[in-house]
Amino acid sequence: MNPNDIDLPDVVAEVKAAFDRYEQALIANDVETLDALFRDDPRTIRYGGTENLYGYSEIKAFRAGRPSAGLMRTLARTVITAYGRDCAVASTLFYRTTSPRKVGRQMQTWVRFPDGWRVVAAHVSMIDDADGAVS
Amino acid sequence: MNPNDIDLPDVVAEVKAAFDRYEQALIANDVETLDALFRDDPRTIRYGGTENLYGYSEIKAFRAGRPSAGLMRTLARTVITAYGRDCAVASTLFYRTTSPRKVGRQMQTWVRFPDGWRVVAAHVSMIDDADGAVS
Repeated sequence: MNPNDIDLPDVVAEVKAAFDRYEQALIANDVETLDALFRDDPRTIRYGGTENLYGYSEIKAFRAGRPSAGLMRTLARTVITAYGRDCAVASTLFYRTTSPRKVGRQMQTWVRFPDGWRVVAAHVSMIDDADGAVS
Repeated sequence: MNPNDIDLPDVVAEVKAAFDRYEQALIANDVETLDALFRDDPRTIRYGGTENLYGYSEIKAFRAGRPSAGLMRTLARTVITAYGRDCAVASTLFYRTTSPRKVGRQMQTWVRFPDGWRVVAAHVSMIDDADGAVS
């Protein structure tokens, strides 16, 4: 990776569009879109708030069984960094009014395949918010 | 990314060597090696067990101030997947005897630069271990 190929503007724009689409689908619990944006592969991994999911089928089963209420959230300090043309990382903090004094962290690795950008790895967790709630 | 370029054996071997080196440095609290394996860049992000670190300088300051005791851990379900020749994700669960009934999750995105493989993004968190401790 040539460091000059970090954050090529057209690549960042593509990943940002995919990231935004994912976020809208998440808060709407649009399971079809959420499933479509994860790579359908046994090597796709999602560490979630209370579960460790190995492979697309485990992730898909989790989505199907998830309660749809209370998913709204506010993002903060979102950073999308693209490494070359086919790989990017999207990191963001998030806050939910249902979880005061907690800060969520979501980190996703996106890879570009012939059919578009897909999440190949994701990790979501909540910790105490040392800095106080941001809304 | 051509799906045929996932997990090229020589690339996976390189990332596994870097991952193992990181793990040895972590349990030994070898701060110099830990620092060397993270990309020195303001865009490098590390979400840790209790802190959110944006940029290499915040990560380095955290390492310097970290207590060195109790870092030993046992890994489980480690998966390293390489996407092309310059990008890979390493995901692992971990257990510490000092944190019974908890499971740790560590996910790192590695990118190959002219000077070697570096972590550009990492997320570490602990949750209750629903499956019981594995040692």
